[in-house]
Amino acid sequence: MIPRYSRPEMVAIWSPEAKFRIWFEIEAHACDALAELGVIPKEAARTIWEKGGAAKFDVEKIDAIEREVKHDVIAFLTHLAEFVGPDARFVHQGMTSSDVLDTCLNVQLVRAADLLLKDIDALLAALERRAFEYKTTPTIGRSHGIHAEPTTFGVKLALAYAEFTRCRARLVAAREEVATCAISGAVGTFANIDPRVEEHVARALGLRPEPVSTQVIPRDRHAMFFATLGVVASSIERLAVEIRHLQRSEVLEAEEYFSEGQKGSSAMPHKRNPVLTENLTGLARMVRAYAVPAMENVALWHERDISHSSVERMIGPDATVTLDFALARLAGVVDKLLVYPENMQKNLDRLGGLVHSQRVLLALTQKGVSREDAYRLVQRNAMPVWRGQGDFLTLLKADADVAARLSPAELEELFDLGYHLKHVDTIFRRVFGRA
Amino acid sequence: MIPRYSRPEMVAIWSPEAKFRIWFEIEAHACDALAELGVIPKEAARTIWEKGGAAKFDVEKIDAIEREVKHDVIAFLTHLAEFVGPDARFVHQGMTSSDVLDTCLNVQLVRAADLLLKDIDALLAALERRAFEYKTTPTIGRSHGIHAEPTTFGVKLALAYAEFTRCRARLVAAREEVATCAISGAVGTFANIDPRVEEHVARALGLRPEPVSTQVIPRDRHAMFFATLGVVASSIERLAVEIRHLQRSEVLEAEEYFSEGQKGSSAMPHKRNPVLTENLTGLARMVRAYAVPAMENVALWHERDISHSSVERMIGPDATVTLDFALARLAGVVDKLLVYPENMQKNLDRLGGLVHSQRVLLALTQKGVSREDAYRLVQRNAMPVWRGQGDFLTLLKADADVAARLSPAELEELFDLGYHLKHVDTIFRRVFGRA
Amino acid sequence: MIPRYSRPEMVAIWSPEAKFRIWFEIEAHACDALAELGVIPKEAARTIWEKGGAAKFDVEKIDAIEREVKHDVIAFLTHLAEFVGPDARFVHQGMTSSDVLDTCLNVQLVRAADLLLKDIDALLAALERRAFEYKTTPTIGRSHGIHAEPTTFGVKLALAYAEFTRCRARLVAAREEVATCAISGAVGTFANIDPRVEEHVARALGLRPEPVSTQVIPRDRHAMFFATLGVVASSIERLAVEIRHLQRSEVLEAEEYFSEGQKGSSAMPHKRNPVLTENLTGLARMVRAYAVPAMENVALWHERDISHSSVERMIGPDATVTLDFALARLAGVVDKLLVYPENMQKNLDRLGGLVHSQRVLLALTQKGVSREDAYRLVQRNAMPVWRGQGDFLTLLKADADVAARLSPAELEELFDLGYHLKHVDTIFRRVFGRA
Amino acid sequence: MIPRYSRPEMVAIWSPEAKFRIWFEIEAHACDALAELGVIPKEAARTIWEKGGAAKFDVEKIDAIEREVKHDVIAFLTHLAEFVGPDARFVHQGMTSSDVLDTCLNVQLVRAADLLLKDIDALLAALERRAFEYKTTPTIGRSHGIHAEPTTFGVKLALAYAEFTRCRARLVAAREEVATCAISGAVGTFANIDPRVEEHVARALGLRPEPVSTQVIPRDRHAMFFATLGVVASSIERLAVEIRHLQRSEVLEAEEYFSEGQKGSSAMPHKRNPVLTENLTGLARMVRAYAVPAMENVALWHERDISHSSVERMIGPDATVTLDFALARLAGVVDKLLVYPENMQKNLDRLGGLVHSQRVLLALTQKGVSREDAYRLVQRNAMPVWRGQGDFLTLLKADADVAARLSPAELEELFDLGYHLKHVDTIFRRVFGRA
Repeated sequence: MIPRYSRPEMVAIWSPEAKFRIWFEIEAHACDALAELGVIPKEAARTIWEKGGAAKFDVEKIDAIEREVKHDVIAFLTHLAEFVGPDARFVHQGMTSSDVLDTCLNVQLVRAADLLLKDIDALLAALERRAFEYKTTPTIGRSHGIHAEPTTFGVKLALAYAEFTRCRARLVAAREEVATCAISGAVGTFANIDPRVEEHVARALGLRPEPVSTQVIPRDRHAMFFATLGVVASSIERLAVEIRHLQRSEVLEAEEYFSEGQKGSSAMPHKRNPVLTENLTGLARMVRAYAVPAMENVALWHERDISHSSVERMIGPDATVTLDFALARLAGVVDKLLVYPENMQKNLDRLGGLVHSQRVLLALTQKGVSREDAYRLVQRNAMPVWRGQGDFLTLLKADADVAARLSPAELEELFDLGYHLKHVDTIFRRVFGRA
Repeated sequence: MIPRYSRPEMVAIWSPEAKFRIWFEIEAHACDALAELGVIPKEAARTIWEKGGAAKFDVEKIDAIEREVKHDVIAFLTHLAEFVGPDARFVHQGMTSSDVLDTCLNVQLVRAADLLLKDIDALLAALERRAFEYKTTPTIGRSHGIHAEPTTFGVKLALAYAEFTRCRARLVAAREEVATCAISGAVGTFANIDPRVEEHVARALGLRPEPVSTQVIPRDRHAMFFATLGVVASSIERLAVEIRHLQRSEVLEAEEYFSEGQKGSSAMPHKRNPVLTENLTGLARMVRAYAVPAMENVALWHERDISHSSVERMIGPDATVTLDFALARLAGVVDKLLVYPENMQKNLDRLGGLVHSQRVLLALTQKGVSREDAYRLVQRNAMPVWRGQGDFLTLLKADADVAARLSPAELEELFDLGYHLKHVDTIFRRVFGRA
Repeated sequence: MIPRYSRPEMVAIWSPEAKFRIWFEIEAHACDALAELGVIPKEAARTIWEKGGAAKFDVEKIDAIEREVKHDVIAFLTHLAEFVGPDARFVHQGMTSSDVLDTCLNVQLVRAADLLLKDIDALLAALERRAFEYKTTPTIGRSHGIHAEPTTFGVKLALAYAEFTRCRARLVAAREEVATCAISGAVGTFANIDPRVEEHVARALGLRPEPVSTQVIPRDRHAMFFATLGVVASSIERLAVEIRHLQRSEVLEAEEYFSEGQKGSSAMPHKRNPVLTENLTGLARMVRAYAVPAMENVALWHERDISHSSVERMIGPDATVTLDFALARLAGVVDKLLVYPENMQKNLDRLGGLVHSQRVLLALTQKGVSREDAYRLVQRNAMPVWRGQGDFLTLLKADADVAARLSPAELEELFDLGYHLKHVDTIFRRVFGRA
Repeated sequence: MIPRYSRPEMVAIWSPEAKFRIWFEIEAHACDALAELGVIPKEAARTIWEKGGAAKFDVEKIDAIEREVKHDVIAFLTHLAEFVGPDARFVHQGMTSSDVLDTCLNVQLVRAADLLLKDIDALLAALERRAFEYKTTPTIGRSHGIHAEPTTFGVKLALAYAEFTRCRARLVAAREEVATCAISGAVGTFANIDPRVEEHVARALGLRPEPVSTQVIPRDRHAMFFATLGVVASSIERLAVEIRHLQRSEVLEAEEYFSEGQKGSSAMPHKRNPVLTENLTGLARMVRAYAVPAMENVALWHERDISHSSVERMIGPDATVTLDFALARLAGVVDKLLVYPENMQKNLDRLGGLVHSQRVLLALTQKGVSREDAYRLVQRNAMPVWRGQGDFLTLLKADADVAARLSPAELEELFDLGYHLKHVDTIFRRVFGRA
């Protein structure tokens, strides 16, 4: 996470201020439950909410205390006591640091997931709008980077839409994974704290109680969360790579929006580079990379060790901030993408009609030619075209073996573009529920 | 995937024989739909099922053809034609290789997921049985590898049970991810094939039609599948590491079953090593590693490139076979684990009562001592015990500041083990639905 | 590692037969040293070499014994004893299994490295030959996928040559990393075996003694080895991606060799796909993936645990066999690459002279125009060309502000291609030591 | 990289101020060479050094310009021009942004490597001192977490010393990988800049000219650099895990230094946790993770794309700052490690003499017993000891079959600890060059 690739709302979730505020809320909600259970005075719980709620925590002071006691939660509680006064001794009763830390981390991850979902929604909206805009704009479909058969630019965008719909569902599931709360004590036995405290805090924070925790919330949950982020990032990369390809000089079917005053190159003033999607390609590598340490974090020793902590202090913000930025950037790229239908048509025409080769092949088999023979007939007329020696339709008409089966009129009909687009509505209905 | 870490049922899913059989079924189901639509003769569809269904495909022959044509599906169709005869020209009408390859891969992944789910069920059954067996067996809970507070061995196993319940749900979701079928032609436009063919084949194979494919089924699905396998493997590693720790010479609270005739070491006849769980630790690393190329596979060029193919030919079997083996091995380890409750008790007693330190701390605060002072009082009596100089309870009784607040009887009550186990039933009910 | 992507020579290194043969040699060399030191009879050492050397080890028999004793080295020694007779009791004196296993693994890795070096040499030879062949063939250089300035196809290949020269040096270093031998006993103290045995065996096998081992050779060595393979694989990917780009329909500056009878697509007979380099892209992902578990293998517990073993049984063959195949395939692709200089020229001309924009910019600053103004002047003439509206030279001549500084003749001279190629010899001399 | 795990000297290398200073120096050195070649006035070069050298670059101003022009180097040059005046037009003549960016990155990486080497030297010094301190302190060697045979604590530290000596050599090699400079223009052809400029700048900055660059320095170099950092991190993890094991409650052979005032747990005042080495375990996961995107960065498109840039902006600082912090922390842990030789002896004695089992086995074979029989004899006496039923030596003496071969005196001699330590000097001489 670096400022260059960060957006303030997500960064704020990970600020020390936000963290300490969540810590306070966890402690204060727990006090409510403890008071309800008669463990601490109700008066004390009220005081804690009142004085702590009004307090402005001083991050530097807390850090200074931590440097001495080498323990972050103790440092915070010490600082909190300055505001709350003597009732502070009722705070954190029967709890262990991880009750606070782990529940807080999950609150932060849930909030992060909510932002990511908003990002995806914006991206989906942009994709849908542009997909319908170019629903029937013909363009060449390519496999292996080689011209294959016609499709439409709208179908390309529908594919991305469907993919990010899946990503959305995965993020919802990932959010559920980490939406749990643990207030279960030093080894998860509730020895010093009633399970009802956990249930109360969970409810108050919109979480579910963790069915069984140790000192910590099990890290398979977080592994699944960050692995999911890696998959979403990979889908960003896919669309980014598609756009980079479309902007290649030789292809130029689309371009990233190029703002007034923007300079493409310090040396070459003519250049308009797909720098945003190249950037997204790199960011995807990063978000993906964070999945591995998250998985290595699962195998904590016994009831817990703290090796996961340094990892999470880094990838918590790094992965969510970077992905948030990337999704927003991609939405912007899609939203303002410059699309060149004429160039698409030009490229479509480039291969001299070869894109219709399969249809010719099928027509020949329909006329009784074996698949192998048909393949040979088509290929021997396709190869010269591939080498730039002639036009496919002309050559086919001139091939005696082909002509024996397909009349010139029949051949011409096989070269109809509309043939390829007849099911676009079906695809759109499947993806968007409307066409 | 190597024979040493493979089980036959999972290996069979990935055999060439199984693959060609699935290819055949895809083609034959497609023929049914094509016949229904009037594209090919109904008679032909019947012949194809009949002759192809009875055929014993010759893998070596297909491979030989492939070496010539450099194309696996064409090689298969050529071979199939030998059995089917002239009607073979109706096979694969309007389809592209990936229609067959991708749908087949998903059939294989779904079958693999079904096996993995069976594995997890066996593991869950073993965990549940052993968890109830040791539900109230006290053992020391450890954080940072250091004794913390008592828990029970049953709670440890309940934690694993809950974790693999989550893994199960993740696998179910992963299975859904890849349970799709695409018969959509060269660039996914259904140019040469009616979408109803896809719908028919999907239904026949227990899959859903892919809403929008290109030439291929989008690889974000497979990335999610393999990432999930990596998370499951990480949970295996966690439990394996726990058992390895328990078997350490100094801990020895549990041991892997050691069969008659087994030799622990070629050099040291006394050794009994946790080789199975060490092995599982390594296997987890492998399954996890496969998630990364699966994610790199997502960003195919345009409508597809074939870079994902070599990866999947390797990780398809490698990841599923290894995980299947690992889950089965882990189930066996749990099922036959030798558990030593007396050693657990011995270890519990080792720290001279220090495990009760938090309770003393809390009791002091309840008596009006500030948290900071209570901490100091407890710590100054704990440190000598830690260094092996005396027993915690005795020291506390002798500490004037402590004695001023807590009578000997009160202190003794704080050292009661039952105190820590009172919520075990709650935990079990949450995890197993019964206690 | 799957047969499809394997070559026999590398596979043979990892066969059980090869492994047992190396095990035998380690044991027999150790016996020589033990005999020399008077620990065992010289006669016994001779017998062991004689009878063991002549023996044909039966892999299945050894496996059967292992299934009983659950220990591979004991199984082998039991089998060896059948050949050697009573003197077999002198084998493995004071040694521990890992002395054999780890030294054997390193012998295998060294042999594998030697093959990989041969592969790289073949690749380098192909690159050098083709580089000189196209040393002065002009082609457009591209950054961001956008036309930048001219270069030559030879320079592109020189870059690859330089990169694989570095890869070669890295592989040599990686080979050195693992070229060690450990015969140091159960925890590396030489308690039961004299260090001179280790020195003798090392010398006999072309290895260095490991300065300090525990039971095992430290795994940081192997981590470095496999990480290096991952880097080499990434360089393969780079060149593969370059070729895939060059073969794109719109670019078509080069193509993979397309053999007689090869079929590009089951559906589209016109297609010629870069399937080999796409395949290499995927294989690179795999080799790279193996680096991660190799690094996770480093942190063994205390003097050793066996978690690394399952990983190495898989990635040992998987990484080396796959990389060997990939290097050989890439050498073949380079060797037979179809290169189209006319298409390169066509692409060079495509941007209407924009590739000379930087030179115009520099000429303007030389004439006293500020960098910012020059940039603006050039950009305002470049943008119409970019949009296909006119030719860059013509527009510049017609721009009054430009014409005020640069005469038509001066402008024309700035559009000379030779200008860009004048240092090609320098580059070649740096890379190949000759031009 | 987060402040919590950062040290100022390494952070400074990556500050915007440091970066812009290096950019300036690259430009100014290039001007010197350009002046020498007569491309720009010598006077101008002098002015540039003078005014630019004295300038205090305003990071925020540069950022503001960049937000407009969307190009960082242009933004910097614009800002520089404010200080330098009209001669600024001679800056960056014939250069492209990447000439500056890539050379700067390598300067930063070289400086980072130099700091890391200093870190390793400090770590090595601490390891050497402590290794000699405990050279002959007996401790149990463990394989699989199970007691094996005696070794010394000094040998354990010697192993770590040897490992970090290797890490040092790897870092030196990694530094060499990235110690190159490229001033070769837009596609590396030196079209607008003489290769002698590159040579001059390289020399001035202590780098080597990159033999052939494109627009960028090839990323296989950086992949190797970051992969090496990942391996070094894995060695840190190994030693950290060793110390965590030693500090376990049941083992307690060593402990991290625990400062006055430090609190181990908010809940359990008795706890002393190995938090530093647990932290290092997590940090190692992070540094390792960065190797993967670094390898994915290699396959740039054609002469370059900019996908690597976002990755490097993150992992450049993240990997080096984190590794620097981790190495320094580890050196501190080793330096102040509390070592408990009495506990080591206690653990050594724990297994009732079983650690001598191999020696008994060997003695039996020396007396003519077959290996298999000897194994059985030893194992049948070892198993009861393992179960806590008796002492190994006593049982062996009482075993008739053993007694038939080994007298009580002979048996006793086999239980001598000195036997295991006799080669410690050899090991030390190999590792440290002295004993």
